[in-house]
Amino acid sequence: MRPSPTFREATRDDLPQIVALLADDGLGATSETPGEALPEYYVRAFEAIADDPRNAVIVAEVDGEIVGTLQLTYIPSLTCLGGERAQIEGVRVATDQRGHGIGQAMITWAVEQARARGCRMVQLTTDRRRPEAIRFYQKLGFRPSHTGMKYHLNET
Amino acid sequence: MRPSPTFREATRDDLPQIVALLADDGLGATSETPGEALPEYYVRAFEAIADDPRNAVIVAEVDGEIVGTLQLTYIPSLTCLGGERAQIEGVRVATDQRGHGIGQAMITWAVEQARARGCRMVQLTTDRRRPEAIRFYQKLGFRPSHTGMKYHLNET
Repeated sequence: MRPSPTFREATRDDLPQIVALLADDGLGATSETPGEALPEYYVRAFEAIADDPRNAVIVAEVDGEIVGTLQLTYIPSLTCLGGERAQIEGVRVATDQRGHGIGQAMITWAVEQARARGCRMVQLTTDRRRPEAIRFYQKLGFRPSHTGMKYHLNET
Repeated sequence: MRPSPTFREATRDDLPQIVALLADDGLGATSETPGEALPEYYVRAFEAIADDPRNAVIVAEVDGEIVGTLQLTYIPSLTCLGGERAQIEGVRVATDQRGHGIGQAMITWAVEQARARGCRMVQLTTDRRRPEAIRFYQKLGFRPSHTGMKYHLNET
C-alpha cells in the first residue's frame, strides 16, 4: 500500500509541475500551455494567489514527489448565516498516480481545512461529462444539488 | 416601462435590506434570520467582504430603492491561462420587483464588470430545483456545463 500524501502550500518552484498537472486533463487539455518556458501569466496568477489570504494552491506529495494539486478559495458570505464558504477548484491527480486514493485524501484534507477554519460549506463544480467524478464527490459527502453555469468571456 | 436599475457597492447601512432580500428566497428562507436586530455575524461577514478587494456586495436600485442584490468574487486562477474568474453568488430580486427585467440587468452588469476587469470566465451555480433560473442564465450566455456540488459542514 502506498503511503498517504502530505499537503502543503505550493511555492513558486512547484509552478512548472502544477501547470503540467493542470494541462494533463482529459477534457481541458487545450486550455493550458505547459512547457519549458513557463508563460509569465502563470507566475503572475500564482503570485496573486499566494498573496491573497483567502486563496491557496495546495500540492499533495508522496515520497517528496508532487502527485496532485488543488486550489482552495475562502469566500466571505452573507448567506449561510454569515459564514465563509470554501471552494475547491483545479483538482488534478497525476495520471500515473490515479487509483491509489490520492484524490480522496486530497478532498478529505480540503474539507477538514474548511471545517477547522469554521466554514459553513465546501463547494465545487465538476464537468457534467465526468459522471465518475460526480459519484466520487458524492461518496465523500457532497450533494449534486446545483447546476454549475459558466460564461467564457474570451470566446469571441 | 420601469427605469433601468443602477448599481453600486453596498454600504453597512444597506445591510438590513440585503439580509431581508437574502431571506426572501423560496428555497432557502430558513437559512437566514432577518429582523430588527441584525445578528452580529452579518456585520462581521459584511465587513470581511467590504475589506476584501476581490469581493463585493452589490445592490441594484430603482428610484433610490434597493430592488436586488448579488455578491461578486474574483478568484485568481492558474487555469484559464492564468486569468481571474468572476463568481456570482447570492443573487436576489425583491419579490414585488420581479418580472421587470431587473435580474437580467443585474447579471448583464456583473458580466460586464468581469469583462472590464479582464476575467476569463464568469461562473455561478443555481439550484437544480429552479429550472426557470437555469433557462434564465442560459438566455444570458451561461452554459449549464457543470454539476454544482455542496457539502454542508454544520449539518451534524
